[in-house]
Amino acid sequence: MKVKDLKQYSQSRAQLIEKALEEYLPGDDVVPEILHRSMRYSTLGGGKRLRGILALAAAEMAGGSRDTALPLAAALEMIHAFSLIHDDLPCMDDDDWRRGKPSNHKMFGEAIALLAGDALLTRAFYLLTRLALPGDVVVNIVAEVAQAVGSEGLIGGQVVDLQSEGKQVDRATLEYIHCHKTGDLIAVALRTGAMVGGAGEELLASLTAYGRELGLLFQITDDILDVEGDADKLGKPVGSDVSHGKATYPALFGMEKAKEAAQAAAANALAAVAGLGEEAWPLRELIDYILHRDR
Amino acid sequence: MKVKDLKQYSQSRAQLIEKALEEYLPGDDVVPEILHRSMRYSTLGGGKRLRGILALAAAEMAGGSRDTALPLAAALEMIHAFSLIHDDLPCMDDDDWRRGKPSNHKMFGEAIALLAGDALLTRAFYLLTRLALPGDVVVNIVAEVAQAVGSEGLIGGQVVDLQSEGKQVDRATLEYIHCHKTGDLIAVALRTGAMVGGAGEELLASLTAYGRELGLLFQITDDILDVEGDADKLGKPVGSDVSHGKATYPALFGMEKAKEAAQAAAANALAAVAGLGEEAWPLRELIDYILHRDR
Repeated sequence: MKVKDLKQYSQSRAQLIEKALEEYLPGDDVVPEILHRSMRYSTLGGGKRLRGILALAAAEMAGGSRDTALPLAAALEMIHAFSLIHDDLPCMDDDDWRRGKPSNHKMFGEAIALLAGDALLTRAFYLLTRLALPGDVVVNIVAEVAQAVGSEGLIGGQVVDLQSEGKQVDRATLEYIHCHKTGDLIAVALRTGAMVGGAGEELLASLTAYGRELGLLFQITDDILDVEGDADKLGKPVGSDVSHGKATYPALFGMEKAKEAAQAAAANALAAVAGLGEEAWPLRELIDYILHRDR
Repeated sequence: MKVKDLKQYSQSRAQLIEKALEEYLPGDDVVPEILHRSMRYSTLGGGKRLRGILALAAAEMAGGSRDTALPLAAALEMIHAFSLIHDDLPCMDDDDWRRGKPSNHKMFGEAIALLAGDALLTRAFYLLTRLALPGDVVVNIVAEVAQAVGSEGLIGGQVVDLQSEGKQVDRATLEYIHCHKTGDLIAVALRTGAMVGGAGEELLASLTAYGRELGLLFQITDDILDVEGDADKLGKPVGSDVSHGKATYPALFGMEKAKEAAQAAAANALAAVAGLGEEAWPLRELIDYILHRDR
């Protein structure tokens, strides 16, 4: 494998995570079968595995092993899948499609989708308890993940996002949404990954700062891609407000300022890991990748 | 306080749990306020606190302190509240009322109710990490709770219950529903409470057996009360199938056999704690209370 090839690096780790998820999710022949089919449908066979890959990268960077961190990576991807299933429900974003296939509730009905999300979240916490680490470290990891997901983390971000729909929001609100809805899980993936590797305070602080900026960068570029994609589809000029009344950077500041904000987040993320050694190259490459991705 | 007065015993512990929940839930002035109001609405000021009280009782019985077990008791009540909020949603049981007040989604809308449930479940796991116990014990408690709630526990029971609606189910299916939807959380409350107190295998086994029978007893008597209550309301003879197409003991076996099954569960529960000392009196009294309760 060529060193410093981010694509190969990510693919090999995504495969490990996929295999781990396959193993850590109950089989679809386990009662109640429909629930396990639904959980597997939305968790397996798709997604960039960004959160899982970041957890593995941070673990290795802190001197830990990838194998030890695998249950953590899988747990984070289950939590991500939970949040997408619930986000797609009719009472939330009401999305019929996800990752190119029908969303969970279109396949299994709303009730099973709701319960599959609940069960994935619960399974994630169970999986964290399986980490082969001293009890105190595991407890800290569970606590950090729960805080990142909870009412002042990812779920809090979803609430404020919902409440902002169709409204003109200010910068502080937009940053709250992005920071929590996307940033908290990304930052905690890096932090808890590093904790698996036994990282000290300094490395944890660098990775936390990097994670926050990366989450922001990810969300701004996502917003930009949404607007450009929609504009493409609708034949409207790029930068028009076609973002479904969602709070986004381009909608609030215009496309040019949004792109500047993405550049700034990328620069801040790079600065956050400037003190780390050569082995942090995947984190550096990832910034560039997200900044220039087309999905 | 009079010894052996179950009502006073329960009330004093329910008050402790209420105070703990009040403290462990974010205030309704914490952003996002509506989410925290919604979480507090469904968790505070109501309920028998059966699961929390059982956890405290088991902790004391195993020689632990009530104070140490309080975060566990509160976490179990948050999980119970989560399950009720999601159960009441339109895509599930579609209940407009809960504990004599409008259900969560009637007050806050479906999206906030969904997210409040998610956040309560997450908060419960966070709270477990705050238990002042050795890391390994906390990890075991988190694992047991996650398994009791997950796809083969409470949530699995909800799925099978849903799938059975309007169908004639067999005894095995009905027992699956009762054992998991109600029994697992009750049994794990006793088990993890005992783990807080440092219980050995023998006590754990007795409490587990007791918990399973108590859960069954609770569910059968609940079914009986539903039928009798509905029959009262509708002026139909007691024992008619007025249980909304739900799988219940009276619907499946008739009222007389259902009452016999309740008696049998009560006898088994009593036998499970026969080897325990005088200090197990609340567990013994509770059986009688549930058998003869009128709600």
